[in-house]
Amino acid sequence: MSSNFGEYLKLSIFGQSHGPAIGMTLDGIPAGLPCDMDELQKFLNRRAPGRTDLSTPRKEEDRPRFLGGIVDGYTCGAPIAAIIENTNVRSGDYAHLKDNPRPGHADYTAQVKYGGFQDAAGGGHFSGRLTAPLCIAGGLCKQWLEQQGIRIAAFIVSIGGVTDPYEYDPTDPPIDRISEDFPVLDPAVGEAMRHRIAEVRAEGDSVGGIIECFITGLPAGIGEPMFGGVESRIAQIVYGIPAVKSIHFGAGYAAAYMTGSQCNDPYIIENNTIRTSTNHSGGILGGITNGMPVIFQAAFKPTPSIGKPQQTVSLTEGKTTELVIGGRHDPCIVPRAVPVVEAAAAIAIYDLMLGNTKTDRRK
Amino acid sequence: MSSNFGEYLKLSIFGQSHGPAIGMTLDGIPAGLPCDMDELQKFLNRRAPGRTDLSTPRKEEDRPRFLGGIVDGYTCGAPIAAIIENTNVRSGDYAHLKDNPRPGHADYTAQVKYGGFQDAAGGGHFSGRLTAPLCIAGGLCKQWLEQQGIRIAAFIVSIGGVTDPYEYDPTDPPIDRISEDFPVLDPAVGEAMRHRIAEVRAEGDSVGGIIECFITGLPAGIGEPMFGGVESRIAQIVYGIPAVKSIHFGAGYAAAYMTGSQCNDPYIIENNTIRTSTNHSGGILGGITNGMPVIFQAAFKPTPSIGKPQQTVSLTEGKTTELVIGGRHDPCIVPRAVPVVEAAAAIAIYDLMLGNTKTDRRK
Amino acid sequence: MSSNFGEYLKLSIFGQSHGPAIGMTLDGIPAGLPCDMDELQKFLNRRAPGRTDLSTPRKEEDRPRFLGGIVDGYTCGAPIAAIIENTNVRSGDYAHLKDNPRPGHADYTAQVKYGGFQDAAGGGHFSGRLTAPLCIAGGLCKQWLEQQGIRIAAFIVSIGGVTDPYEYDPTDPPIDRISEDFPVLDPAVGEAMRHRIAEVRAEGDSVGGIIECFITGLPAGIGEPMFGGVESRIAQIVYGIPAVKSIHFGAGYAAAYMTGSQCNDPYIIENNTIRTSTNHSGGILGGITNGMPVIFQAAFKPTPSIGKPQQTVSLTEGKTTELVIGGRHDPCIVPRAVPVVEAAAAIAIYDLMLGNTKTDRRK
Amino acid sequence: MSSNFGEYLKLSIFGQSHGPAIGMTLDGIPAGLPCDMDELQKFLNRRAPGRTDLSTPRKEEDRPRFLGGIVDGYTCGAPIAAIIENTNVRSGDYAHLKDNPRPGHADYTAQVKYGGFQDAAGGGHFSGRLTAPLCIAGGLCKQWLEQQGIRIAAFIVSIGGVTDPYEYDPTDPPIDRISEDFPVLDPAVGEAMRHRIAEVRAEGDSVGGIIECFITGLPAGIGEPMFGGVESRIAQIVYGIPAVKSIHFGAGYAAAYMTGSQCNDPYIIENNTIRTSTNHSGGILGGITNGMPVIFQAAFKPTPSIGKPQQTVSLTEGKTTELVIGGRHDPCIVPRAVPVVEAAAAIAIYDLMLGNTKTDRRK
Repeated sequence: MSSNFGEYLKLSIFGQSHGPAIGMTLDGIPAGLPCDMDELQKFLNRRAPGRTDLSTPRKEEDRPRFLGGIVDGYTCGAPIAAIIENTNVRSGDYAHLKDNPRPGHADYTAQVKYGGFQDAAGGGHFSGRLTAPLCIAGGLCKQWLEQQGIRIAAFIVSIGGVTDPYEYDPTDPPIDRISEDFPVLDPAVGEAMRHRIAEVRAEGDSVGGIIECFITGLPAGIGEPMFGGVESRIAQIVYGIPAVKSIHFGAGYAAAYMTGSQCNDPYIIENNTIRTSTNHSGGILGGITNGMPVIFQAAFKPTPSIGKPQQTVSLTEGKTTELVIGGRHDPCIVPRAVPVVEAAAAIAIYDLMLGNTKTDRRK
Repeated sequence: MSSNFGEYLKLSIFGQSHGPAIGMTLDGIPAGLPCDMDELQKFLNRRAPGRTDLSTPRKEEDRPRFLGGIVDGYTCGAPIAAIIENTNVRSGDYAHLKDNPRPGHADYTAQVKYGGFQDAAGGGHFSGRLTAPLCIAGGLCKQWLEQQGIRIAAFIVSIGGVTDPYEYDPTDPPIDRISEDFPVLDPAVGEAMRHRIAEVRAEGDSVGGIIECFITGLPAGIGEPMFGGVESRIAQIVYGIPAVKSIHFGAGYAAAYMTGSQCNDPYIIENNTIRTSTNHSGGILGGITNGMPVIFQAAFKPTPSIGKPQQTVSLTEGKTTELVIGGRHDPCIVPRAVPVVEAAAAIAIYDLMLGNTKTDRRK
Repeated sequence: MSSNFGEYLKLSIFGQSHGPAIGMTLDGIPAGLPCDMDELQKFLNRRAPGRTDLSTPRKEEDRPRFLGGIVDGYTCGAPIAAIIENTNVRSGDYAHLKDNPRPGHADYTAQVKYGGFQDAAGGGHFSGRLTAPLCIAGGLCKQWLEQQGIRIAAFIVSIGGVTDPYEYDPTDPPIDRISEDFPVLDPAVGEAMRHRIAEVRAEGDSVGGIIECFITGLPAGIGEPMFGGVESRIAQIVYGIPAVKSIHFGAGYAAAYMTGSQCNDPYIIENNTIRTSTNHSGGILGGITNGMPVIFQAAFKPTPSIGKPQQTVSLTEGKTTELVIGGRHDPCIVPRAVPVVEAAAAIAIYDLMLGNTKTDRRK
Repeated sequence: MSSNFGEYLKLSIFGQSHGPAIGMTLDGIPAGLPCDMDELQKFLNRRAPGRTDLSTPRKEEDRPRFLGGIVDGYTCGAPIAAIIENTNVRSGDYAHLKDNPRPGHADYTAQVKYGGFQDAAGGGHFSGRLTAPLCIAGGLCKQWLEQQGIRIAAFIVSIGGVTDPYEYDPTDPPIDRISEDFPVLDPAVGEAMRHRIAEVRAEGDSVGGIIECFITGLPAGIGEPMFGGVESRIAQIVYGIPAVKSIHFGAGYAAAYMTGSQCNDPYIIENNTIRTSTNHSGGILGGITNGMPVIFQAAFKPTPSIGKPQQTVSLTEGKTTELVIGGRHDPCIVPRAVPVVEAAAAIAIYDLMLGNTKTDRRK
């Protein structure tokens, strides 16, 4: 088990960075759901490379071809399958990656695990390019959730040390205040982030950052106890995004420094609805949604591919050596990762809603 | 799916806080593995309540009775099953918990999800008491990993704002320096933590904290790409522990503030072994172990049960009300959660090792 | 994976024939379902040994003790867990079973698989006794299905060559004509079957037989395409019952001898309902129910434990030897297997109904 | 869950008969396994339509295009993904299939389940065409098993009432005696079967038949107790093949008519190997292989598409109507189903071998 996710839906992702195509199958989806392909393409474009001067210039259309599961714009009950052809492939010789593993990448761990049989070209199945099929699945789930009034949106909190000193009410997160082009709450901070990215790129270096995600409109009662809770399921899929090293919900680390009387969210009644007056829990108690917005953060390490010379080893010669990674790479993948985080959250939430244990209320 | 975990092993946890018994089944375990029941009991005792003056005085023996799967001290290939009788049960009337949900607990989310049919007594299936069967499964997995040279140990980093300002080399974590009685690296800081707990208890309040976990001796190559990576699997199970709100691996959040040239761990050769000279990755690249120690942190929110009056609502009357939680409760569950984190990590790692995709090396 | 079943519910069965207890956990069940424990006990009694002079005289109460998941007679949403204590255990020495495997039993295959660590006493985890916890889970599922108008009943078609030459209309199977005490359609044939069992018992031999099962009241549309079809799921669980060697649906083998014009069930309209005028499909097309009764048969081999001397080998000495199995055993397990087949079918159907892919009909 | 199979490998099949393409992903396969694409194509050709005058004249190349998972002829550890383009598609109007369901097909059950959103063209996802991707996965698994000395071969026992009165020794099945072109043990009987098919075709009718499958070279100890046994797993996947209505192992139904002393297979020692002198068990005891050949049979109903007029209903008009199915169809799918049965068995066995619970033998 590896490139599969879901208890009720079954997502399977396949392909390698420089193989013929990448793609996904998504099984277990109800029939009759409308699929807006233009909206999906817009979503995928948010992740696609080559859009701004700050990302890798590799231009891929990222235009999915659907092979099954959708007929006349509606899901038909059969597994949804889509591929994206790799138009820009396997030109060079990647044998050196098997000998000189790039620090921070999966080259060495893949070499040990797969004994040299792995597809090393462009990172193979470990490439960030595999987040494109994740966005196909997630973009569709996001549409279907929106039709039920559930919205998911993410934005950049911090890049390369430039952090948005935002303050907002987590019981009513500013989901409509996120900038469209460069997804931040404060465009001025966004400008500083872009400046910081340009700076490290000029130095042949890279930076990481932090993304925050809001999910609003979720009914209370979604999620299962213990290992099937909302946090468990979102964390599992979000850690499937390359470079994520941390994930927290609600107050997260800060909760560890609070007292119970500070951290517990008091219940109130507002417009005949039960709510909490604060939202330190991030909308989740006992793994189950309480009807408040779900809020989580994921931290990304810097892109491992940098222009600066690095120390590595030659696996065949058994000695250290210097490595210089050629080509041009994203100095910061955080902006492109924003829709990927949304996609991952959408898939996890849609899976939880499909499998939501019902209560028999005939008593 | 809820109280089940594992791709290759199948862990199932059952029981409610005040039901007849709690327990677990653990299927898929090889036959022939020795089980040291004294060592297991010692491990369970680290989690058991009532050991110190700082924890809840509810005294439960937490002595498992094995119903299957172990014969003459060795696993027999059949599912392992064990229960712990609840000797201290359902004395009071818990109907009020269904009407007046306790802030920070799962009372309200369970009420919505299960429509009043849930076992509300003592938190039911959401009780921290359910971590006892997790520790039975995890304590056994920990033994079996130790027999392969893989060690797992956790310790307290921070409680109620008292934080250990430790420094250590993450390529060689001080796994043998953890105090036995109160698991910290620096006993003086441990003393301050205990003082802080006593303080908040006196105030009828509670505190949370942070636990760090080391896993050493893991071979490189364990873990699967994407959603089956070490981070995904550990995060899924650790978020099954009540009160966890954050989990990070290696440099975690700090990685988001580094540059690539700072964060990438250079490869070196030491005693004919490939290692990294730093360990910001926490021993994991592309979801797969690189042979360095795996290091992760989990943050716990404060115990939601506090003595101070809190605001909640009456679900039947539809208005706010004040709640005072009687009885005595753990002012801080972090010390008792240390073996639970170890247990969770042991289960996830053992599962990953069982399912480790092999490479055919006959070519 | 072994002693687990279910895609949406999660059934886990544990215990060995002569271990402390046997039991099961059943997770994923909605809250609020009534559980009639008297009815369940009556169902379990149909499987229990020692009821007639024809079955093994080992007397076990088979009285489950519920440890979780049911509160005040209703499911509470937590995993249902129940055990049956083994009161009649591990008296003798079973080492010889590891050396001299009994023909037709799993002694040899368990010895190879588990390397001598298996619990050989009484067949261990392979014992027919493990069908008791299957009946706890299945007996509950059967109740819940009945509340929705879905009935499941099985009866004996053939034992030891005595076959009921029944004829009935498979579009309206005689579910109410099954005798209660000895479940056959024709009590006279039942008498002949009992006579045949007594005969082979006197010879120190055993016989097998065939069980047929009806499921009525199932709505059309249950089951998933390909590997999640009704036939796939029922076959998987029914082959988990010891001694089953064949399973067929509808016309079964006979379908292989028909022409398409004979086998295809024509559609008709009756009382504004779409039905088929014949039922060769056994109520299933493309893995999905069509609203007609589901009908299947399972064939059981004779009980492997017989009094007659048999040839086996000594694994330690590496030579053939004669084996005489002492004690008394069921000369025919078919009568006791009838409720087990019903239980297995109930679990598979309940699982399929829980996971039934919905269609969004808002278009 | 529907079009997925496997506990350790993860097979996912997608596509509809007249959609853009059909395909499969196969995850969890070790790296380093050689893939002989010519051999695979030969295997696929055995299933492909249009080869003889007896099958549907729809000509599809059934030439898979691999999108991932195989590099330079070896598995690379990433999911294997392959598609077959549908070159012969969606010409006509299939709306009438939604109104007038064809007897014996899944048209009606799909209509109920998917509410009219299903892809009705050519049977959509229910089409026998979906067995082509099953054969891609199974053809590869078959190669990898052969490299371990495990052979799988199936042949036709009976078609349209023409039955091979074969006799052979099931402890040493005649796996090398199967004719290549038309897979039977006795070519003269094969000729009679072909004659029978031509006969029913001329009548605008169809016939079914029985396929038997041998698996030799399997080591003892493969398979898991209860629901993970060899019979459970093979039955689950074989019932995923359209038209299968029965499956049995070893003596199958005949076992129900034997006595224990007839049915039990005595153990013998031959060339220092433990064997049984008969093979009524079909090589499986307690769900686990005993080292003898695994033998099973599957019965197929006649092709539901026939030229003769049939009675059905108009779903919109709510009255019966006569249906004549145009076009030309396989009068018997049994010959083409032979490699599909082999493929299904290969996948189930390969999955069981990947997940085979190990025994720790250090004691």
